[in-house]
Amino acid sequence: MNKGRVTIPTDDNFIKETMEIAEKWGADGIRDCDGFKLPKEIKGLAERIYSTYFVARGDNKWAEANKEELQQTYLMTKHHVASEDKLRIKIMDGYFSEQVQPDTYHDIKTWWEVIDRTTNKVVDIELWSYDEKSQEVIIEKVDKWHEYTVTFLAYCIWDPTQMYNHITNNWGDKPHEMPFDARKPKSNKYIFEAMHRWLDEHPESNIVRFTTFFYHFTLIFNDLAKEKFVDWFGYSSSVSPEALEAFKEEKGYALRPEDIVDEGYYNSSFRVPSREYLDYIDFQQRFVAENVKKLVDIVHEDGREAMMFLGDNWIGTEPYGKYFSSIGLDGVVGSVGGGATLRMISDIPGVKYTEGRFLPYFFPDTFFEGNDPCMEAKENWITARRALMRKPVDRIGYGGYLSLAYKFPKFVEYIESVCNEFREIYDNIGGNKPYCGLKVGVLNCWGKLRTWQTHMVAHALWYKQIYTYLGVIESLSGMSFDVEFISFDDIKDNGVPNDIDVIINAGDAGTAFSGGEKWLDTEIITTIREWIYNGGGFVGVGEPSAVLYGGHFFQLSEALGVDKELGFSLSTDKYFNSELDKHFITADVTDEIDFGEGQKNVYAKSKDTEIICYKNGDLLMSSNDYGKGRAVYIAGLPYSIENTRILMRSCFYAAHKEDKMKIWYADNLNCEVSAYLESNKYAVINNSHEKQVTFVYDGNGNKTKIELQPGEIKWNKIS
Amino acid sequence: MNKGRVTIPTDDNFIKETMEIAEKWGADGIRDCDGFKLPKEIKGLAERIYSTYFVARGDNKWAEANKEELQQTYLMTKHHVASEDKLRIKIMDGYFSEQVQPDTYHDIKTWWEVIDRTTNKVVDIELWSYDEKSQEVIIEKVDKWHEYTVTFLAYCIWDPTQMYNHITNNWGDKPHEMPFDARKPKSNKYIFEAMHRWLDEHPESNIVRFTTFFYHFTLIFNDLAKEKFVDWFGYSSSVSPEALEAFKEEKGYALRPEDIVDEGYYNSSFRVPSREYLDYIDFQQRFVAENVKKLVDIVHEDGREAMMFLGDNWIGTEPYGKYFSSIGLDGVVGSVGGGATLRMISDIPGVKYTEGRFLPYFFPDTFFEGNDPCMEAKENWITARRALMRKPVDRIGYGGYLSLAYKFPKFVEYIESVCNEFREIYDNIGGNKPYCGLKVGVLNCWGKLRTWQTHMVAHALWYKQIYTYLGVIESLSGMSFDVEFISFDDIKDNGVPNDIDVIINAGDAGTAFSGGEKWLDTEIITTIREWIYNGGGFVGVGEPSAVLYGGHFFQLSEALGVDKELGFSLSTDKYFNSELDKHFITADVTDEIDFGEGQKNVYAKSKDTEIICYKNGDLLMSSNDYGKGRAVYIAGLPYSIENTRILMRSCFYAAHKEDKMKIWYADNLNCEVSAYLESNKYAVINNSHEKQVTFVYDGNGNKTKIELQPGEIKWNKIS
Repeated sequence: MNKGRVTIPTDDNFIKETMEIAEKWGADGIRDCDGFKLPKEIKGLAERIYSTYFVARGDNKWAEANKEELQQTYLMTKHHVASEDKLRIKIMDGYFSEQVQPDTYHDIKTWWEVIDRTTNKVVDIELWSYDEKSQEVIIEKVDKWHEYTVTFLAYCIWDPTQMYNHITNNWGDKPHEMPFDARKPKSNKYIFEAMHRWLDEHPESNIVRFTTFFYHFTLIFNDLAKEKFVDWFGYSSSVSPEALEAFKEEKGYALRPEDIVDEGYYNSSFRVPSREYLDYIDFQQRFVAENVKKLVDIVHEDGREAMMFLGDNWIGTEPYGKYFSSIGLDGVVGSVGGGATLRMISDIPGVKYTEGRFLPYFFPDTFFEGNDPCMEAKENWITARRALMRKPVDRIGYGGYLSLAYKFPKFVEYIESVCNEFREIYDNIGGNKPYCGLKVGVLNCWGKLRTWQTHMVAHALWYKQIYTYLGVIESLSGMSFDVEFISFDDIKDNGVPNDIDVIINAGDAGTAFSGGEKWLDTEIITTIREWIYNGGGFVGVGEPSAVLYGGHFFQLSEALGVDKELGFSLSTDKYFNSELDKHFITADVTDEIDFGEGQKNVYAKSKDTEIICYKNGDLLMSSNDYGKGRAVYIAGLPYSIENTRILMRSCFYAAHKEDKMKIWYADNLNCEVSAYLESNKYAVINNSHEKQVTFVYDGNGNKTKIELQPGEIKWNKIS
Repeated sequence: MNKGRVTIPTDDNFIKETMEIAEKWGADGIRDCDGFKLPKEIKGLAERIYSTYFVARGDNKWAEANKEELQQTYLMTKHHVASEDKLRIKIMDGYFSEQVQPDTYHDIKTWWEVIDRTTNKVVDIELWSYDEKSQEVIIEKVDKWHEYTVTFLAYCIWDPTQMYNHITNNWGDKPHEMPFDARKPKSNKYIFEAMHRWLDEHPESNIVRFTTFFYHFTLIFNDLAKEKFVDWFGYSSSVSPEALEAFKEEKGYALRPEDIVDEGYYNSSFRVPSREYLDYIDFQQRFVAENVKKLVDIVHEDGREAMMFLGDNWIGTEPYGKYFSSIGLDGVVGSVGGGATLRMISDIPGVKYTEGRFLPYFFPDTFFEGNDPCMEAKENWITARRALMRKPVDRIGYGGYLSLAYKFPKFVEYIESVCNEFREIYDNIGGNKPYCGLKVGVLNCWGKLRTWQTHMVAHALWYKQIYTYLGVIESLSGMSFDVEFISFDDIKDNGVPNDIDVIINAGDAGTAFSGGEKWLDTEIITTIREWIYNGGGFVGVGEPSAVLYGGHFFQLSEALGVDKELGFSLSTDKYFNSELDKHFITADVTDEIDFGEGQKNVYAKSKDTEIICYKNGDLLMSSNDYGKGRAVYIAGLPYSIENTRILMRSCFYAAHKEDKMKIWYADNLNCEVSAYLESNKYAVINNSHEKQVTFVYDGNGNKTKIELQPGEIKWNKIS
């Protein structure tokens, strides 16, 4: 039993020690890592040998010879005010000339766009010209005091990931890897030939770990060689005249450059997506899936497995996308930062297995003398484990330099216990689904496509504007709920799925996560109102359903029993501000609730609204009955053990299923229970680093007291 | 010198003591107050005897006999969701049946409106009916899960001010005064006859104090007889079929009920006003001015003065309105809560004199045993005095029961000193204008009409959502600046006035005070950009120029050098967050700055933005050069002595006139200097309740050290 399901990196001249650790951790997989190449001798030393493979970079000879086939990106200059009749705009101002260069190979009058941002009108192509030498666009006869931007197509002359590593690690004159574009005719042919050749030349591995495929998420540096723009979901660097022409052919209409640069917001996933952008995503996903499938087929024909790393050049292969399953990949591996990122990997449909790369990465920033890497490892494991209990990845693994980790024996020992615990969990679950008390639908503009990926900017990085909402997703990742991500378009097309108990809508006003103008769609708003009124549960966090219209800011304000004061209704007296003494939702709260960034100026609309938390003139938590249904409002919910319990209780309350909560339940909020009825087993986990005592409720609601050591997991048979 | 310019109330059987206090305070005016009627013997006992007169209430005999001519108001029900095919809406739900009653005298199908708020469509009049008995509107064939409202015309059967006093003071079965409408034919004739009659019957006074004229500001009570809605600027209770028909005649188009109820916001002054609403205001102001002029003429023909109380039924006689001067009133009296309310009165054009009623009001809530009414009096006097120094009212006065004040000899003594100090100030100023270092234009949708009246809801009451902006106005009221209130329409029609140094735009996004969609008017935005670029100063507070468009939230973000993150541009790295060590604007700051409600998520757009204050990831104060001009951003500025100095410095800095600041200037921020060059005098005031030492700078920038006692004012000759 204590063997397998674990992948470790190896290192230069480190085979003996690698095998020693593989033995200790029960690893059956060995991978290369960060520039280091696997030695031929590795072959056969483990069941699974992974080789990293880059499809569209790392072959500068090809790239140099076919520069017109390099990847491209759309860039927008900043706004320039016209103080004279003529305006000169240095288009590369603020961009990194070693990363991108204006594309003058393709007709600039076709592919570039000068826009008067004050009137939102495109400037006639006759009225501007481009000076290649000074890299300036000169606009004639401008309207004075209007602001202008230039959108230009650029070539990407440096792969963003290599650029990042190159600059960060001071790689000096190491060549810049130039990314070539799988959509361009010669390169398209070339990548398949290269795949064949590479397989022939690399017999040592039996798994090709694609890192990744064709298009990098948007990552643009500035003139100081520092990050200027990062969007883990961005499609800007997947464009090209060839792509746009194919789009027109396929979809029957042409995109404008503006459809990509989007006023400089570049279709951030926070923007309510336009129909054009959704079409473009669909179009690229189909192209990428079709072509990646060919690569995967080649790998399979060679008798090996094909695996995708979820990141870097993953654009077009979003695993919850429409075409992903058709690719036929064997597995997906991704980095696990916590519960939500684990579920993002483990829930991926259409592959044989998923693998989570756990933290810490074996890099000198953690593995230095005097530091205890076990701390980060424990935090990472405990945070991710609660999600693992709901839906495990099939494998776990680590990355970085194994030789570094080897120097920390306590760490090596701790990871041994993690590997054993993981396998025990995996085996006990036995592929069965744990008991779920409720089914929750997270409603936003993206739905299924961005399952477990809401509110992210750069992958798993903290931003002041997102942590308040990410907490909802992180909490859900380990909760005994079924979770589905649904879009407004799903609701419009098919109504609310029958099995949903609670809809959660969380986000700032106007964002794709709150929904913005989607709430003005009569079909959508009435479908949701009807559904709640007839008994559905709704939990709104932050500015749910927010868009000013018809006398409401929260379009569901009648259901929620609250609205937000924007100043327009100050004349209406707000009498309702008495917090209830106690409430089902906050029954476990002992300290002040952490609402994160919270909200200001939310108020109760009537005496019927149950005010659960009210501070400094602001309503922060409430519930309201609406017909047979119920709608809970919460100002914000950053991730914590306490807030996880608040969200769980909010959902049971909203669903009118308070009496169903204490089933496979631990009353100590540091503990959680997962029951696998088909396996006839249940587990109780301690998510804290302290000893805990808790009552555990079984499937009939009978309780037993148990004690758990810090971070402990206890398994029991269902009697 | 120590006589005159002061009005006092008198009381029942209190003539001897009244004369004693009049002598002490140098009062030359005596007024009646709160229900108490002046005795005949009062005649001749003072130069000025004021009698309160109500034009449109207080004559229930007339009102009873002409019930169809009572005043009216438009009311909107709350939103009702249709859960069945038929919807019944109890229209009086939440309203106070003793105050308002549905008007079925006029055709309801003409004057009422049922609206589907989900589609924003008016429901066909064939599809609804009204059951008078149950006071229900029954709507047939509704769209299920849409929300509906009913807008109905109601009669006002109780004057709101009398209702408020009646309920507050438990007046029991004292009759409810019913307000009749000067626009309706019989009542219009009647009010002039009544005026004549009243003058005949009341020879004791020589000044008629109108309290006020025809229409009360909007004040609606709820079914619990408590305030439901209050808008000191609201026109809702000035409507009637007769008015709306006359409007159509005059303006050439018909208003809809929706133009008045405005989705339930009732055209709050926070709403960017619609053309229809502005037309309606204009229309009513003209009518009111014409008819009030007739009343004033009658008073004048009788050899008396006509004075207006600024409040209660003042709708249509806004003193900064277009038609006000044409009325020919002798004076205006209003309540002084601080500097801004003082200037609101003292700056009124087109009257012979203005009078400020100071606090405290002689009521038992302040004048009770054990309390020291001097505290409130001192605070009121010192706060208002700095505004008085800039532009004095011509008279001051007090209200309430004089017999109450009489029992507090220390208070009587303190007010004596206030009256003397007021007369000294008034005489020293001698009608001359003080030196102004700058001219500031406060820019919003209302401009001149609402001079010194921005961000108010109920007169001078505190609201969490307004104090952060009211501070700007209160600070300005006593600053050595010329202040003008300008509207976006002024800018559009005439550009920025030539003599303006600094434009201030302060308010929450979307409100009339920030400007909302006005910033999308190409003429307005380019005019302001050009003006700043060519050397103008701009100070933005809160969410200036905020409306999402063209890649900016702040439409002046290029000038301000800052914008607000709504989530859409999270992908763009925000590098600029280092606060400057020191800055001209904050040179006098010692403690943490109070930004009031402040702002979140404002960020600097480039390294050129001077970051003056940055806390917890949010930029709170900055400045940016834009061409030859400059734009200062401040997150919020509640009133305080410290913030007054910050605003003053911000304006000098924005105007590039830092070197002009130390002219008639006190470096101790508790002190202010006003210089009257034509009077050859200057005054230094201590705005604190502590002793202060300050350098005082004269017109050449030469400084002298002086010491001031708590609250002291010192006068000097200009040498």
